Amino acid sequence: MLKMAVLGCGRIGKLHAENIARHPRLGLEAVYDLDGPTARAVADRLGCRAAASLDEVLGDDAIDAVLIATPTSTHADMIETVAAAGKALFCEKPIDLDPARVEQCAAAIAGYDVPIQIGFNRRFDRGHRAARDAVRAGEIGDLHQVIITSRDPLIPPKDHLKLAGGLLRDMTTHDFDLARFMLDDEPVEVFAVAAALVDPELGRELGDHDTAMMILRTADGKMCHINNSRTSAYGYDQRVELLGRSGMILSDNRRVNEVRRFGAAGTEMASPYLHFFTERYLEAFVAELESFAAAVESGRPCEVGFEDGCRALLLAQAAYLSVKERRLVRVEEVG
Amino acid sequence: MLKMAVLGCGRIGKLHAENIARHPRLGLEAVYDLDGPTARAVADRLGCRAAASLDEVLGDDAIDAVLIATPTSTHADMIETVAAAGKALFCEKPIDLDPARVEQCAAAIAGYDVPIQIGFNRRFDRGHRAARDAVRAGEIGDLHQVIITSRDPLIPPKDHLKLAGGLLRDMTTHDFDLARFMLDDEPVEVFAVAAALVDPELGRELGDHDTAMMILRTADGKMCHINNSRTSAYGYDQRVELLGRSGMILSDNRRVNEVRRFGAAGTEMASPYLHFFTERYLEAFVAELESFAAAVESGRPCEVGFEDGCRALLLAQAAYLSVKERRLVRVEEVG
Amino acid sequence: MLKMAVLGCGRIGKLHAENIARHPRLGLEAVYDLDGPTARAVADRLGCRAAASLDEVLGDDAIDAVLIATPTSTHADMIETVAAAGKALFCEKPIDLDPARVEQCAAAIAGYDVPIQIGFNRRFDRGHRAARDAVRAGEIGDLHQVIITSRDPLIPPKDHLKLAGGLLRDMTTHDFDLARFMLDDEPVEVFAVAAALVDPELGRELGDHDTAMMILRTADGKMCHINNSRTSAYGYDQRVELLGRSGMILSDNRRVNEVRRFGAAGTEMASPYLHFFTERYLEAFVAELESFAAAVESGRPCEVGFEDGCRALLLAQAAYLSVKERRLVRVEEVG
Amino acid sequence: MLKMAVLGCGRIGKLHAENIARHPRLGLEAVYDLDGPTARAVADRLGCRAAASLDEVLGDDAIDAVLIATPTSTHADMIETVAAAGKALFCEKPIDLDPARVEQCAAAIAGYDVPIQIGFNRRFDRGHRAARDAVRAGEIGDLHQVIITSRDPLIPPKDHLKLAGGLLRDMTTHDFDLARFMLDDEPVEVFAVAAALVDPELGRELGDHDTAMMILRTADGKMCHINNSRTSAYGYDQRVELLGRSGMILSDNRRVNEVRRFGAAGTEMASPYLHFFTERYLEAFVAELESFAAAVESGRPCEVGFEDGCRALLLAQAAYLSVKERRLVRVEEVG
Repeated sequence: MLKMAVLGCGRIGKLHAENIARHPRLGLEAVYDLDGPTARAVADRLGCRAAASLDEVLGDDAIDAVLIATPTSTHADMIETVAAAGKALFCEKPIDLDPARVEQCAAAIAGYDVPIQIGFNRRFDRGHRAARDAVRAGEIGDLHQVIITSRDPLIPPKDHLKLAGGLLRDMTTHDFDLARFMLDDEPVEVFAVAAALVDPELGRELGDHDTAMMILRTADGKMCHINNSRTSAYGYDQRVELLGRSGMILSDNRRVNEVRRFGAAGTEMASPYLHFFTERYLEAFVAELESFAAAVESGRPCEVGFEDGCRALLLAQAAYLSVKERRLVRVEEVG
Repeated sequence: MLKMAVLGCGRIGKLHAENIARHPRLGLEAVYDLDGPTARAVADRLGCRAAASLDEVLGDDAIDAVLIATPTSTHADMIETVAAAGKALFCEKPIDLDPARVEQCAAAIAGYDVPIQIGFNRRFDRGHRAARDAVRAGEIGDLHQVIITSRDPLIPPKDHLKLAGGLLRDMTTHDFDLARFMLDDEPVEVFAVAAALVDPELGRELGDHDTAMMILRTADGKMCHINNSRTSAYGYDQRVELLGRSGMILSDNRRVNEVRRFGAAGTEMASPYLHFFTERYLEAFVAELESFAAAVESGRPCEVGFEDGCRALLLAQAAYLSVKERRLVRVEEVG
Repeated sequence: MLKMAVLGCGRIGKLHAENIARHPRLGLEAVYDLDGPTARAVADRLGCRAAASLDEVLGDDAIDAVLIATPTSTHADMIETVAAAGKALFCEKPIDLDPARVEQCAAAIAGYDVPIQIGFNRRFDRGHRAARDAVRAGEIGDLHQVIITSRDPLIPPKDHLKLAGGLLRDMTTHDFDLARFMLDDEPVEVFAVAAALVDPELGRELGDHDTAMMILRTADGKMCHINNSRTSAYGYDQRVELLGRSGMILSDNRRVNEVRRFGAAGTEMASPYLHFFTERYLEAFVAELESFAAAVESGRPCEVGFEDGCRALLLAQAAYLSVKERRLVRVEEVG
Repeated sequence: MLKMAVLGCGRIGKLHAENIARHPRLGLEAVYDLDGPTARAVADRLGCRAAASLDEVLGDDAIDAVLIATPTSTHADMIETVAAAGKALFCEKPIDLDPARVEQCAAAIAGYDVPIQIGFNRRFDRGHRAARDAVRAGEIGDLHQVIITSRDPLIPPKDHLKLAGGLLRDMTTHDFDLARFMLDDEPVEVFAVAAALVDPELGRELGDHDTAMMILRTADGKMCHINNSRTSAYGYDQRVELLGRSGMILSDNRRVNEVRRFGAAGTEMASPYLHFFTERYLEAFVAELESFAAAVESGRPCEVGFEDGCRALLLAQAAYLSVKERRLVRVEEVG
C-alpha cells in the first residue's frame, strides 16, 4: 500500500484525496493546504491527518509519495521541494505556464532520482486506452490520421480564465498529450487557428479564445486534427478517432445511462453525456493513481513523466506561435 | 422481359403497377379495375392499356403474368380464374379470410401448372433477407429464438378494419410468414393474447384487437415471439432478432436519413423511421416482383407460394383459437 | 452510518461485504460463515471481525442490520432468526424455493416490525430505473407492452443447477421482479414455454431448461414478454423495452468501454457487453444497499420487501404450471 | 418533362443517362460519344437515339438541356459550345483544372442567359441536405465548426490519377463544395497539409497525395476541418458534423442494410457502408437532376451554378499554395 499526502485542498485536490482514501491499495496519510480549516475539513471527512506545514509532510517517513494539487503557479516550486525531499511525486498539469520556468525546474530536479508523474488523466480513460492498445497491437495497421474532438460543456468563469494561461495551454494541453499518446510519436509541426466565437468579449477583454482547430504532424507524416470548444450545448464531448491502413477505431463518449428514447420527434435518442471531466474521467483519475503507485512500488518509470508535461507545453507554445504568424510551426522553433 | 397485367387499381394495385412500369426488366401491358375511370387514369399515367374486361386480359397472349390486387374477398375467385387461363399469377395476401375457401381454392387450382406467388413482401426486405441468409450460412449456429417486433404507426380507419378480418389475420399474417421464413421451419404450436389497449372501442364495437403478443414453437423446440401494436408514436417499427448458439443477428429499422441530433435533452437522436410499409418495404415490393419474374422465366418454383399463404392463415386460425381458449394450440388442430 | 454484518462468505456474500466495507456511509462490523477460515480471510481483507457464531452477531448491539447471503435453503430460517433478534435484514433472493416454506416464514415474522429487503438488485440498475421513472413521469403515456430480454453468458455447472430450483425460479425470478417493477402493477396471468435447447442433457438428466419464453398480463391488459437463455455467445444481455401510447423507451446493455471498430467485415462494432451480473449490476448492488440503509435509517419501508420476494416466486410457480399444462395460468391459482 | 441529351458515355455519363431515362419527369432524347459504338450501346439499352454528332444534338429543338459528362479536359469547351447553342446545361465537375481556363470560360459564356448547373451531387444527399436545412432553420443556433470526413474506399488506378489533377482538385473539390454549402458562407482562408501515406510511390512518381487535412475559415470566424484519404479499409466514409451554439448535428454514413451482428468479438456490428459514390450518392445523382429540371422549368437559378464550380477550384488552388508554402493562405491571393 502506497502511503500518500495531498498538497492543496481545492476541487482537484479533494477529488484526488477522496480517490486515495477510498482505494483499497492506497493510503491517505495527510492533506495540507495553506488554509488550515479547509485542510482539516477534508482530513476529518476522509479520516486522515491535516498537516500543519509542508515540512511536516516532507519530514514524515510514513509518507511515500506526495500529490501536488496546489495552484498552477506553485507547481514548479512544489516539484522542486518535494523532489529534494526524496519523495515520489504526482503533480497536476501543467508544470508551469512559462516554458523558461519549466526548463529551470527540469534542471533543478535533474539530480534527484524520484518517480514523477504528471496528471494527464485522459490517457487512462478505459476507452482511449483500449483504442490505443488496439492500434499498438496492429489492429488497424499503420496509423495515418488521428482526430480528437474535445469540447467542454460550459465556459469557465472569467476569474478562472484569467489565471488559466489561455485556451491552448489550459484546455488543449490535455488534447496535445492525448495526441502524443495516440500517435505514439512526437508531433514535429503544428498549425492552429483560434477565435472567441462563443463569447467575443473573451477575446476583446482577455485576448483569450473559446474555439480552436489544429493540425499536428509527426516526422513520418502522420496527421492529427484537434478541435476544441469551451461550450457544448449537448454536453462534454470527448472523442478520439484513429484511422489506419486496415481499419478505423473510435473511442466514443460515455453517457449517464444506456436508456434510448423513441418518439415522434426522433428515434434512438441516447441519454446525455457524462457532465464534465470529473464524471467522464472519474475512473481515469483513479487509474492514473494506480499506475503511479505501481510505478513507485516496482521501480519502473511512471507512465506520464515530467518530459510529457514539457512536450504538451511546447505544443501549446508552437500552437500559439502558429495562431500569431498564421503558419505551420516546427515544434523545435519553440523548444 | 416479363409482361404483366395488374387487376385492381386501389392503393396496393397502383403501387405494384408503378413498380412494374418503371422496372427495366418488367413490362406493364394492362391494368384492369371494375371502375373504368380509375383504371384509365392509372393506365394513362403509366403508359399502358386499360383493359375493358377481365377476359380481355386473360385472352391477351402478350400478357405472361397477372398480378391480383383486387379486394381480399375476390382473391380466391381471381386465383382460380387466372390459373384456369394458364397465366402465371402473383396474388396479394391473404388468399382469403376463410380457411374453407382457401382449401377449396387449393383444390380448384390443383390441376393447373401455373407459377403462383403470394405477396408476402417482407421476406424480400434487404435486411430481413440478409439476416436470414446469415443464419442459413451458419453464422450464429443453431437458431434458438426469434423475436419479431411489428408495430404500425397508425390504426387504420374503422371501415378498413371491418373488412380486414381482425388484427391477427390482417396485420400479424405478415409476421407469421416472416416467422416461418426466419425459423426456416414450421411452427407447430401457437399461444396468443390480444387486446384493444389503444382503442378499447375497437374491442367493444368490432370485437377486434390492436395489441397482441404471441409465442410460436417449431417441432424441434425453436421459439418465436411476435409482438404487435396498431399504433406506434415513434413510427413504423419492424425488427427481427435472431438468437443462435454462437451469436445474435438483428435486422433493425430504417430511417428517413442518417442524421443524428445532439442537444441538451439527449444525444445521438436518430431521424424518424420510414413512415409505413409503402416506404419501409418499397424496395421489397420491387424485389418480390423480380423474384416472381425470375421464377416464371426460369421455371423454378416461386419463393413464396400458395402453400405459404395457407400456412400464414392457419397460424392466424390457431392464434385466434388460442386467444379464445387461453391455451397453447397445436396448428394441426386448425389445419 | 449503518453498521452491518454479513452472513455467508460465498461469492455473493463476499461481494456484498466488500461493497459495505468500501462504502463511505456503510460500516462492515462482522462477517460470519459456517466455515471459520473463509470468514476470517474475508474479515482480514476487509478490516472487520469474523464472528465465531450467529449468536455473536445477533447479540452485538453495535450491529444495526444483517445481510443474509447463506445458501438458499437456509434463507427462510435465517430471516426468522434475524427478525426475531430485532435486526434490520437484507436477504439475497430467493426467500425459499418452496412456496409453503415462504408462507410459513411470512407467518413467523409477521409479528416483528423489522425492515426487510430482498436482493432484487436489477431494480437499482441506473438504466432500468431511469426507464421506469420516465414511464412513471408519463413520458410515453399509458404503458402497453414490456419486453424483457435476459440471457446469461454461460450455463452454470450442473452442481449449481441441481440446487438452483430450475431456470424459472433461479434465473427468471429476477425478470419476474423486473416485470413487476416495470409494469408498476401485478401480473395476474402467465403463459410460459421452456426447453433445453442449449444443452439437451440438462432436460434429460435434471428436468431443467435453458431457454424460455413467457407472456404475462396485468388485470388491465398490459402485456409483458420475457425471453431467457442460459447461454449467450455475445455476452450478458439485459434489455428492457417499454412501449407506451406516446413513445417507447429502451434500457439497453452496458459495454466494457465505448470503443467502436470499423473494418472490412463491418462497421461500428461495439465492445463486448459487461461480462455477467457482477459486472453489469455492480453499481446496482451498491445502490440496493444504499436504498436499504436509507430505509432503515428513515423508517420508510424498504423498496423491495418480503412481499416482492413472494410475488416473484408465485410467478415462477404459475410459469411452471403453465409449462406443464400448456395454458395461460391465473396467478391466483398458485397463490 | 425536361428532354435531355447526354454528352459522353463513360461511367458517369452512363449513370446520368440511366437516371434520366428511368425518371418519370425527365426524358432522355439522345446520347453522344466520340466513340459511336459506345453511344449506340447505351442508346439501345435505354431506348433513345445515338446522335451522330454534337451538332445534331445542339440543333435538335426537341432537346431542352444537355448534360456534359465528357472528359474533364473538354468541359470548358463543351460548356461554351452548349451555352452558345442556347441550351440549358448540366456539367460534371470540375469545370477545368486550370483556373485561367475557367476564367476564360466564364467570360465566354457571360453573354448567354442559359441555366448552368455543376455536378456537385453531395449537396443533394438526403442526410447532408437535412443537416444543412436544420442549421438554416436555427436548430443549433450560430454555426461554429464544420468537420467533414471524406475517405474513398480504394485508391484509383495510376492512369486515372495522372489526369485527375491531384487529390485536392479531384477528390477534395467535392468537400470544398460541401464545406461552402454547410457553412452557408465563403471560406476566405485555407490551410492544408497533404502526403502520400497510403502509397508513397504516388508522391515520388506523380507528386500526388493520398492523405490530407485542411482547415478553412470564413470571414466571421467559422472553422471547417476536412480530412481525406484515398483508401479506407472499412468503406466509403462520408460524414459531416456541424457544431453550433445550441447543439450538434451529424450527417452519418449509409450502410448496405440495417443488420447488426452480435458475437464473441463484439456487439452491434453494423453492415458495411455503401461501397462508393455511385452507391452512397445514388439518390443524390437523381436529386441533382430533379433540381436542375425544376430550375430550368421554373426559370429560377440552378442550385449549384458556374460560380460554385469556380469557388471549389479556387479553394483547391489556395490549398495547394498552402501545402507548398506551409502557411494559411487567403483565398483572394489565388482568386
